[in-house]
Amino acid sequence: MNTDEDVTTARFAALDRKLKAAWEDLFARSRLIKTILEGRIDKQLYAIYLMETYHYTLHNARNQALVGVRALDIGIPYLKFCFEHATEETGHEHMALHDLLSLGLPKESLKIPPPLPMTEAMIAYLYWVSATGNPVRRLGYSYWAESSYDFVMPLVNKVRESLDLKPAQMTFFVAHSKIDEEHAAQVRRMITQNCKTDQDWQDVERVMTTSLRLMGNMMDEVYAEYERLQKEQSPGYAFLGHMK
Amino acid sequence: MNTDEDVTTARFAALDRKLKAAWEDLFARSRLIKTILEGRIDKQLYAIYLMETYHYTLHNARNQALVGVRALDIGIPYLKFCFEHATEETGHEHMALHDLLSLGLPKESLKIPPPLPMTEAMIAYLYWVSATGNPVRRLGYSYWAESSYDFVMPLVNKVRESLDLKPAQMTFFVAHSKIDEEHAAQVRRMITQNCKTDQDWQDVERVMTTSLRLMGNMMDEVYAEYERLQKEQSPGYAFLGHMK
Amino acid sequence: MNTDEDVTTARFAALDRKLKAAWEDLFARSRLIKTILEGRIDKQLYAIYLMETYHYTLHNARNQALVGVRALDIGIPYLKFCFEHATEETGHEHMALHDLLSLGLPKESLKIPPPLPMTEAMIAYLYWVSATGNPVRRLGYSYWAESSYDFVMPLVNKVRESLDLKPAQMTFFVAHSKIDEEHAAQVRRMITQNCKTDQDWQDVERVMTTSLRLMGNMMDEVYAEYERLQKEQSPGYAFLGHMK
Amino acid sequence: MNTDEDVTTARFAALDRKLKAAWEDLFARSRLIKTILEGRIDKQLYAIYLMETYHYTLHNARNQALVGVRALDIGIPYLKFCFEHATEETGHEHMALHDLLSLGLPKESLKIPPPLPMTEAMIAYLYWVSATGNPVRRLGYSYWAESSYDFVMPLVNKVRESLDLKPAQMTFFVAHSKIDEEHAAQVRRMITQNCKTDQDWQDVERVMTTSLRLMGNMMDEVYAEYERLQKEQSPGYAFLGHMK
Repeated sequence: MNTDEDVTTARFAALDRKLKAAWEDLFARSRLIKTILEGRIDKQLYAIYLMETYHYTLHNARNQALVGVRALDIGIPYLKFCFEHATEETGHEHMALHDLLSLGLPKESLKIPPPLPMTEAMIAYLYWVSATGNPVRRLGYSYWAESSYDFVMPLVNKVRESLDLKPAQMTFFVAHSKIDEEHAAQVRRMITQNCKTDQDWQDVERVMTTSLRLMGNMMDEVYAEYERLQKEQSPGYAFLGHMK
Repeated sequence: MNTDEDVTTARFAALDRKLKAAWEDLFARSRLIKTILEGRIDKQLYAIYLMETYHYTLHNARNQALVGVRALDIGIPYLKFCFEHATEETGHEHMALHDLLSLGLPKESLKIPPPLPMTEAMIAYLYWVSATGNPVRRLGYSYWAESSYDFVMPLVNKVRESLDLKPAQMTFFVAHSKIDEEHAAQVRRMITQNCKTDQDWQDVERVMTTSLRLMGNMMDEVYAEYERLQKEQSPGYAFLGHMK
Repeated sequence: MNTDEDVTTARFAALDRKLKAAWEDLFARSRLIKTILEGRIDKQLYAIYLMETYHYTLHNARNQALVGVRALDIGIPYLKFCFEHATEETGHEHMALHDLLSLGLPKESLKIPPPLPMTEAMIAYLYWVSATGNPVRRLGYSYWAESSYDFVMPLVNKVRESLDLKPAQMTFFVAHSKIDEEHAAQVRRMITQNCKTDQDWQDVERVMTTSLRLMGNMMDEVYAEYERLQKEQSPGYAFLGHMK
Repeated sequence: MNTDEDVTTARFAALDRKLKAAWEDLFARSRLIKTILEGRIDKQLYAIYLMETYHYTLHNARNQALVGVRALDIGIPYLKFCFEHATEETGHEHMALHDLLSLGLPKESLKIPPPLPMTEAMIAYLYWVSATGNPVRRLGYSYWAESSYDFVMPLVNKVRESLDLKPAQMTFFVAHSKIDEEHAAQVRRMITQNCKTDQDWQDVERVMTTSLRLMGNMMDEVYAEYERLQKEQSPGYAFLGHMK
């Protein structure tokens, strides 16, 4: 017997396998992740990462709401989810900013440079996905962004240890994780309700894996900028020298 | 002594005078309003009005959210308001639909025609106001849309009387009015917090009076379409003949 | 025998009848047109009209190009037309500006106020029509804008006479009319090639008549603003007093 | 003596050095370029590359025009350039399609899959750059896209040799290169006229190097998809097996 529910469970299992493979690929290739896992991250590297996190997070509520703004033919529950989720995401970039300042950076020295190129590419992609194509596909981004704590938490813990941070200094990741359990369930529900065809599931999967890869590219670039900073070739981030 | 609060109170008083004048002008010119006040509205006329209400309400949550999507430099409270207000407005067009069906129209005969030209002009204007210019200016639409019950309620009551409707048949106006008290207070707070210059207040006032005038144009067109229907020159709305 | 060509000819004849009726309606109702035809227009009234013309013309190339930007499924010839036509329309607002200055207004006194409300409503509508719905529908605006010289030229001639202007002082209308003959033929060709269904022709007709009505509303508002100026209730346009 | 012209010449020299470095980096890392230079490209690999070229080229005219649509404060010459350049780019994706078919693929078997993830990321980035930020910055993409024939022509020649193609089978690259000489001069003129501040030049440079990197990512993905195809793990491109 093959009920609708079984089919959906199997779909999610397939999605989760793809997500696991994407994370494993990222763990295998990322120099930033390697540095974290080996306990070698320092405040400057973490600070660059937080600044890029600030940059893309600033747009998350906006591109989430954009799905509802432009998709005229979606059902009320999904439309409501878009705006509600946008409401909840509003201002989260300030957590990244708070954590950045808590690293010991004098507020007056903080001049966040523009997003790095691959951060801007990810921001662009999320708006594109939200503005065009299958309106359900942005759920692929929400799916990994809010279901990846098995992969992300070990990294967060390692960063906390290495930099000797208190939870109050990691509000973005710690506080985020609690809110996100509920989001994750909502995202799952939205996918279940709105993915009706093979194409829908493929579109969600495509955005899930692509946005995670673009996040990986962003992380690579964070590391490359950190290396430039060590060689004093990164004038935009030189103010991080004020940090201990 | 001229405190900030006094200044704001005076600003709102000026806004309210302009709003009152705009409504009085509308009451003086509108054939639809005259027909309502004289107790001569019938179900067909009300039905056409509800269909246009359906059309523009379908876009209200969307253009509200659009302000937050595109305005990168607004504060978090106003950004949150945009998405929260959009969430609350989501699906309100179904109240207009419900009220329409409750008039005794067989569901299978309902084929809502596209918006009338002046309804589409109003929809277009609200997106334009939301997508461009001063991000605070859309508050001018919210301000009248949610602070006009002194003008609207006598009309609603008259329609109820004339058509012998129960409150459950007027969900759009009745239910809306309760929700909107809170909205009205929020809108007022947003205007207070976000209008800092003369230009800001002028922009809000401009959108308030213009959107109300466009609503008036829409009401004129509802009446004109009703006249065409009586002369059997309105094929798109002929299905309303099924209604008694 | 009823060839495709006959059908198209009949379609255009029907469109032209609708256009004629819309112009006749405008001539019957417009106080601005009445004032022109009676030879009573003065420089201040003409100047206000030119400023509003400046405002909406500034957007014509942009909303024309927008059709091509957003419509992914249109054919290459129509796509090319959108961008080519936008190229040709670029900067035409400066003709309106030139004509305005040639009325004898000292350049330093010229401070064009923001568009009047109904001008902004028309601008908003043209973007909306270009950004959403059937991509062929904006051709309805081009159709009247470039095929209305039978209606417009008598007005232009009357203005020239009344204000004793040289052709070099009416570049917007005179120069425009020459360029536009070619445009008009292209627009006709585009309609012929791209309108395949009844719905397509209806959408073109709807935009044709609606945009002409909105232009009529703009003209009414020009006249109303002129009246306010005469009563010294129009501070934004008071600088026109410098003109003789 | 340091004239304006000298400064501009120095600016372009700096831009060209950055561009050269970006190309050299791409040549050093790209497996697709290595394969081409070693004469090992085959029709299937070239075909996948042409399909991705088709996908992003389809959007080039559109995102070029978008700059003019949204930037209200740019000068008339740059605005005209945006629409004129869009006109010229219109339909160029069909050259890629033509070249693809000329490889010996039966037209009926051609079912172009959706863009690969990194192709979609590049498309998204070009719209983002066109829709937001400094309106001059998209010129950074045009600059390399139309000034890179020193880097591109050796590759094109090598592909022609390896696959034994006639010029008529490489219309995208060959025909493109002629048209583009004029474009390149126009792009240079637009940069000269519109880049007034250090920030302007930095914004152009940023988009130049970022879009070239994203093109590099796309090329990497073309190669990866080709590898999957060889291992029969690329169902979407399996139809290329019909080609010899």
